[in-house]
Amino acid sequence: MGVNSNRVEHLACNNDGSSMKMQAEIQMPPFEIHKVMLPPERTTLQKLRHRLSEIFFPDDPLHRFKNQTCLMKLLLALQYLFPIFQWAPNYNLSLLRADIISGLTIASLAIPQGISYAKLANLPPILGLYSSFVPPLIYSLLGSSRHIGVGPVSIASLVMGSMLSETVSFTQDPILYLKLAFTATFFAGLFQSSLGILRLGFVIDFLSKATLVGFMAGAAIIVSLQQLKGLLGIVHFTNKMQITPVLISVFKQRHEWSWQNVVLGFGFLAFLLTTRHISLKKPKLFWVSAAAPLTSVILSTILVFILRNKTHKIPIIGELPKGLNPPSSNMLYFSGPYLALAIKTGLVTGILSLTEGIAVGRTFAALKNYQVDGNKEMMAIGLMNIAGSCSSCYVTTGRSFSRSAVNYNAGAQTAVSNIIMASAVLVTLLFLMPLFYYTPNVVLAAIIITAVVGLIDYQAAYKLWKVDKLDFLACLCSFFGVLFISVPLGLGIAVAISVFKILLHVSRPNTLVLGNIPGTPIFHNLNQYREALRIPSFIILAVESPIYFANSTYLQERILRWVREEEERVKANNESTLKCIILDMTAVTAIDTSGIDTLCELRKVLDKRSLQLVLANPVGNVMEKLHQSNILDSFGLKAVYLSVGEAVADISSAWKAQP
Amino acid sequence: MGVNSNRVEHLACNNDGSSMKMQAEIQMPPFEIHKVMLPPERTTLQKLRHRLSEIFFPDDPLHRFKNQTCLMKLLLALQYLFPIFQWAPNYNLSLLRADIISGLTIASLAIPQGISYAKLANLPPILGLYSSFVPPLIYSLLGSSRHIGVGPVSIASLVMGSMLSETVSFTQDPILYLKLAFTATFFAGLFQSSLGILRLGFVIDFLSKATLVGFMAGAAIIVSLQQLKGLLGIVHFTNKMQITPVLISVFKQRHEWSWQNVVLGFGFLAFLLTTRHISLKKPKLFWVSAAAPLTSVILSTILVFILRNKTHKIPIIGELPKGLNPPSSNMLYFSGPYLALAIKTGLVTGILSLTEGIAVGRTFAALKNYQVDGNKEMMAIGLMNIAGSCSSCYVTTGRSFSRSAVNYNAGAQTAVSNIIMASAVLVTLLFLMPLFYYTPNVVLAAIIITAVVGLIDYQAAYKLWKVDKLDFLACLCSFFGVLFISVPLGLGIAVAISVFKILLHVSRPNTLVLGNIPGTPIFHNLNQYREALRIPSFIILAVESPIYFANSTYLQERILRWVREEEERVKANNESTLKCIILDMTAVTAIDTSGIDTLCELRKVLDKRSLQLVLANPVGNVMEKLHQSNILDSFGLKAVYLSVGEAVADISSAWKAQP
Repeated sequence: MGVNSNRVEHLACNNDGSSMKMQAEIQMPPFEIHKVMLPPERTTLQKLRHRLSEIFFPDDPLHRFKNQTCLMKLLLALQYLFPIFQWAPNYNLSLLRADIISGLTIASLAIPQGISYAKLANLPPILGLYSSFVPPLIYSLLGSSRHIGVGPVSIASLVMGSMLSETVSFTQDPILYLKLAFTATFFAGLFQSSLGILRLGFVIDFLSKATLVGFMAGAAIIVSLQQLKGLLGIVHFTNKMQITPVLISVFKQRHEWSWQNVVLGFGFLAFLLTTRHISLKKPKLFWVSAAAPLTSVILSTILVFILRNKTHKIPIIGELPKGLNPPSSNMLYFSGPYLALAIKTGLVTGILSLTEGIAVGRTFAALKNYQVDGNKEMMAIGLMNIAGSCSSCYVTTGRSFSRSAVNYNAGAQTAVSNIIMASAVLVTLLFLMPLFYYTPNVVLAAIIITAVVGLIDYQAAYKLWKVDKLDFLACLCSFFGVLFISVPLGLGIAVAISVFKILLHVSRPNTLVLGNIPGTPIFHNLNQYREALRIPSFIILAVESPIYFANSTYLQERILRWVREEEERVKANNESTLKCIILDMTAVTAIDTSGIDTLCELRKVLDKRSLQLVLANPVGNVMEKLHQSNILDSFGLKAVYLSVGEAVADISSAWKAQP
Repeated sequence: MGVNSNRVEHLACNNDGSSMKMQAEIQMPPFEIHKVMLPPERTTLQKLRHRLSEIFFPDDPLHRFKNQTCLMKLLLALQYLFPIFQWAPNYNLSLLRADIISGLTIASLAIPQGISYAKLANLPPILGLYSSFVPPLIYSLLGSSRHIGVGPVSIASLVMGSMLSETVSFTQDPILYLKLAFTATFFAGLFQSSLGILRLGFVIDFLSKATLVGFMAGAAIIVSLQQLKGLLGIVHFTNKMQITPVLISVFKQRHEWSWQNVVLGFGFLAFLLTTRHISLKKPKLFWVSAAAPLTSVILSTILVFILRNKTHKIPIIGELPKGLNPPSSNMLYFSGPYLALAIKTGLVTGILSLTEGIAVGRTFAALKNYQVDGNKEMMAIGLMNIAGSCSSCYVTTGRSFSRSAVNYNAGAQTAVSNIIMASAVLVTLLFLMPLFYYTPNVVLAAIIITAVVGLIDYQAAYKLWKVDKLDFLACLCSFFGVLFISVPLGLGIAVAISVFKILLHVSRPNTLVLGNIPGTPIFHNLNQYREALRIPSFIILAVESPIYFANSTYLQERILRWVREEEERVKANNESTLKCIILDMTAVTAIDTSGIDTLCELRKVLDKRSLQLVLANPVGNVMEKLHQSNILDSFGLKAVYLSVGEAVADISSAWKAQP
């Protein structure tokens, strides 16, 4: 290949003095026409392998193992499975100090939140502490995110509570309820780890951020409304979750409201929200909001202890069993009428907690510039839940932003912070349980509300409205779906809208009319570029999507409409008649058999009207399919060009040669 | 705007003599850099209106009404609603002659097929004739396809029969079964016409051709197997539809096979298949296969009549009521336990018959070069079914290819051929019914098999295999789904696979590395174009899909992997270090909020590694969203270029200016 110094002269345009959009006159010197190439041939097996590796191993997880010795490979494999081998060799005292500080900070948050979230799932409060002990230990071994805090989360707790209580009453049949909760946790873990092992992690991407914003906000409101029971001291509360029955129940039971509860509850709520506000305004004061829940618990417990003989209107936690997690593998429930319910609950809570955990992990990884392997992370979270289900824990995951943000701000450097936190919970479980006897439920309600308030992200919703109205609509639908229908159905609506949006986009793709930008060989959207000019006798259309069964009929109709409209325009303006349609295929990234049939049919229809159809720049795999289906033969050799510019130049010079 | 005669010099390349893919050296003269434009501003309402009109009115159905007088508009509206006003004024004797010939030809096919298909749906045979009388009359008023023949079809008959018989026995409770059939027909019509009125016709596009090929073939086999009952003369036959129980039933009941049936059945089957073969080979002899069913019915009836005292082993149709369609609106069933079943059956048969009818209409329209308005056609088919459900008809539609092909070959010119056919059926209903008394069921079975054999399109399946393996897989899945699971579930599987294929494509889009084609400003896939050259210090990536929530995580990972691999390659070959990543956004036809976040994050990650990220050629609406979300500010002004060529030229000249 020698030095190539071709000079190519471009489409120039004449000023015809009219005020309308001008048409470019073509003054075309001999132009080099490039052939459109086929991609190198590959066998079906090679193609299949390539496709599968792109679907399941897009991050090429084995690239580290290339060109390594056997011993090194073993070490790398160990490091891959147990990230602890990555950081343990470089661990030192200063890292330990940071981890101890952050571990203790999280623990002071985790203990009151754990108890509160367990109550949200209608489970005994002690389960929240159990779930803050075993899972963090397992995650610190297997997890690849260094900044994640592990424990129960509000959304998954709420969903588990609402789905199980619909069928089984936790007051009338607490043992069955407990069994189902552990079984659901087991299936959640099984589902999560299978997604990771089968490398199907991308399914969680279908919960788009837009729908999650709506879903989270709706769930936060549902959770907060449930807390009115505790805050107002209502005894007979509805079992339903939707906004209407809950509000009706609140106002119907006005006679049950107790002023002691209201004063205590709203007092601590105001305190907690204020500390939250302070920490948001001044991130350096993060410890203010981190310490507030434990402070509230201690203060309220002391207060109730002092007043214990004066008031019986304030419900308290009561006795909590001392000691470590009892084994619960004997409580798993693998046959019987409620198995389907347990599996369904496991699936829904599993996918929700996974979404939250992975999102948290990715956020911190991006902040600290390391990569988190989503599939690996899913295996870790899944195994942690399977282990949890055998040791009296319910669904846990990487914690919500507020909580893990504490971990990050508090300077967590490695997974050791999770071990420190678990140790603090261990001490609590072994020695401090009696201290919670007088803790009032109303403070737990205030803690929950403060924790979920952050899930209502109205700024994100406003941004959605500003940038993408359809995304905003999806957000609204999942929000109202959760509020008025039910939490799992709201989630279903959210996913359905996301998928519908994709399908709508695929079945109604854009088609653009292109014009030449004077002085360049570039063709661009006439609508976007005011200076772009039409080429007489040509209409250049860009199809902005793969041509599929789902849009081939539409595209055929739409292209014929463009042609009709162009012919009408040409007639109205007395311009030279339309002779050639160029389809710019740059953005047609794939084509299927229906699409090929459509192109064929389009060519036939246009042929009958003596119009030429030409394709410009088909990408590799489209070219391959056109070739395999032999339709290029019927198109004629000169029907495919490398670029729109070359097509225009070649065709118009051919017209000049034989007028 | 003056005459623009800019000459632009392009990227030239040096030969460095190595055998590896060469890198282009850039010798860049002053290059005109064009600004990337925003599309003209539009209000949210304008955008919404544009979007909705593209979704619901892509064919601009009102364009005929523009610039017309009031009277003309009224006339056009009448013509639109009743296409009869379009062709009636020009109707003449020669058209009438063609229509009479074709109408009588179809009638001779329609009468035996109608009786047969009604038996397939487990309905009284007379319903097949009723359904060939009223619906064609209504269609000839409302329908816009001139070459379509109207009547019951095999697939919809089979599906109605199998869905209703699963719950209600047609032998034990024939009245309820009949009521449900009429009600299902009513809902099918309602569903079809609502799709048309709401302009949602595009939903039928989601039944891709590939899955339909599999579905039709599977259904044809199921239908044929069901006919073994008639062909072999089995009395106790299974109610199931799947291949396994049917075959088991056939061989278990071997003692019930009667040789008289077998001889008669396979004799006529051989006759019918031979005539079909002859007509396929020589299209001019179309009348051979067209006349064969009626001939078979007449011959077999005479034969059985002669032998009537010798054999009682051959089941016959028996007495059919004389007279026109009785009204059946009093039999519609709008409340009760089976309403859901009727609605479901209506939906499934409605969408199936719609798919068939629209496909037939479009095929003929393409052959004869006129356009069929899909939504209009759906309204016509829907109204015809609603009217049918009130006059003792079951689901009808534009007939399968073989049948309508007869209409076309026989020279049908207008919808009058449907009127002629209906008249022939009228005469049959009024006077000829007693003649069918001795018609043996076994001949009906042979007619059905001959009719459905054509649905097994192995050539289309082979083409799918050759062109698109994934399409072929979808075809196989729906084929086996129908054969082994059930007909409606097979249809469900077919749709699910089609949707899954779209989602897979969206969630795992292609990314390509581009190189410069020497002597041009064109950048193309390095893999497809062997002569394309890398530009030192750049990696140019093209993303071949919208950037969505469903693929944003994948794309981020994949782009970072390209960068990592490029850095490794550069290091291995001792080339100049990577400094800039150009994303060619030509094929990124849309972006949502997740996509924008991904671009932001990608820029941050690359920034930390001192790599520049630049976007080339974002299309109008992507540019708009980037602008609205203000991320271009963080990218810097010079981060968006009109083309890859301009980006390369500008950035490398900037590097030269400040080394």
